[in-house]
Amino acid sequence: MKANYLREGLLIVVSGPSGVGKGTVCSALRKKMPELTYSISATTRPPRESEVDGVNYFFKTVPEFKKMIQNDELIEWAQYVGNYYGTPRRFVEETLASGQDILLEIEVQGAMQVREKFPQGIFIFLVPPSFEDLKRRILNRGTETETSLAHRLDAATDELKQIERYDYVVINDEVEQACERIRAIITAEHCRKDRLILSE
Amino acid sequence: MKANYLREGLLIVVSGPSGVGKGTVCSALRKKMPELTYSISATTRPPRESEVDGVNYFFKTVPEFKKMIQNDELIEWAQYVGNYYGTPRRFVEETLASGQDILLEIEVQGAMQVREKFPQGIFIFLVPPSFEDLKRRILNRGTETETSLAHRLDAATDELKQIERYDYVVINDEVEQACERIRAIITAEHCRKDRLILSE
Repeated sequence: MKANYLREGLLIVVSGPSGVGKGTVCSALRKKMPELTYSISATTRPPRESEVDGVNYFFKTVPEFKKMIQNDELIEWAQYVGNYYGTPRRFVEETLASGQDILLEIEVQGAMQVREKFPQGIFIFLVPPSFEDLKRRILNRGTETETSLAHRLDAATDELKQIERYDYVVINDEVEQACERIRAIITAEHCRKDRLILSE
Repeated sequence: MKANYLREGLLIVVSGPSGVGKGTVCSALRKKMPELTYSISATTRPPRESEVDGVNYFFKTVPEFKKMIQNDELIEWAQYVGNYYGTPRRFVEETLASGQDILLEIEVQGAMQVREKFPQGIFIFLVPPSFEDLKRRILNRGTETETSLAHRLDAATDELKQIERYDYVVINDEVEQACERIRAIITAEHCRKDRLILSE
């Protein structure tokens, strides 16, 4: 008899309300867990100063993005505060098939589309320690007009209600601690009984 | 709104076949996770050289142990290769009520009695990387007569079949790695959505 864990990749979705710090947490996680593959989203939102095409996002024009939708090249997409965001399908499927874990950092609307297509995925919801904290983070980002700030706060309130549809909740009190929790969730999921193979 | 995790202790059961190294793994874990409370079993088995009464076990005579059973002072007990083993109830219940996690290192027979009484517990099954490895460990322990070795190997074969009734499986390939897996499982379980409280 030999005991081994299944060599099948996990699909891990990290989502949460606008401004909770998904990007910051996932960047830190990328340094801590280089063995994880990170899905790269496509978006029509203009790049922020530090963002690089093909690294942080695939930046697309609206017509390009609409063509991807038509060709069924996205496993989820959403329009969010006037911009499109989506996850290219092929890279996710190829990564999982090769036995690698893949992490998707996506908005709440999109995450639930992924849940329908990949019910075996691990769905992690990042929350702020408090709503005041969330508001402060969005303000500090300093990239929002007054209208888009109001939109984002409204959206965040709605998004927080989606917590019920997730498997795990990670409080983003400190980036380091949030990363450690996500790492622990991934390790634990690999230890689930269903993932063990006993062979002769 | 404020987000916090439930302050309710987890009952964590680490079990597995005879000789898999439950004791070694749990000793190492005790150094890594001093914040965990460790349940101390009662047993009628004679102490091994390094074992201390009230630290590794409460060593009892057979009449003392039977009295504990009669008084319903044990949440589980089993007779195993001629000796009794059991978990004193009061300490477990008091620890959980105080909001502390408690870890029980117990034999397979006993673990399933605990599952009936504490269905919300986290049940972790420790397995050897291979059956050959298990046999070698039991032999190396050097405390077994030939008859008790044969008994232990038979028992271990039966016990391995109980794997289906556990939540998680941890392969004990290396003690350090097994400890890290158990620690990750505990962290992840604290992050389950049901354990989050959103308050005003």
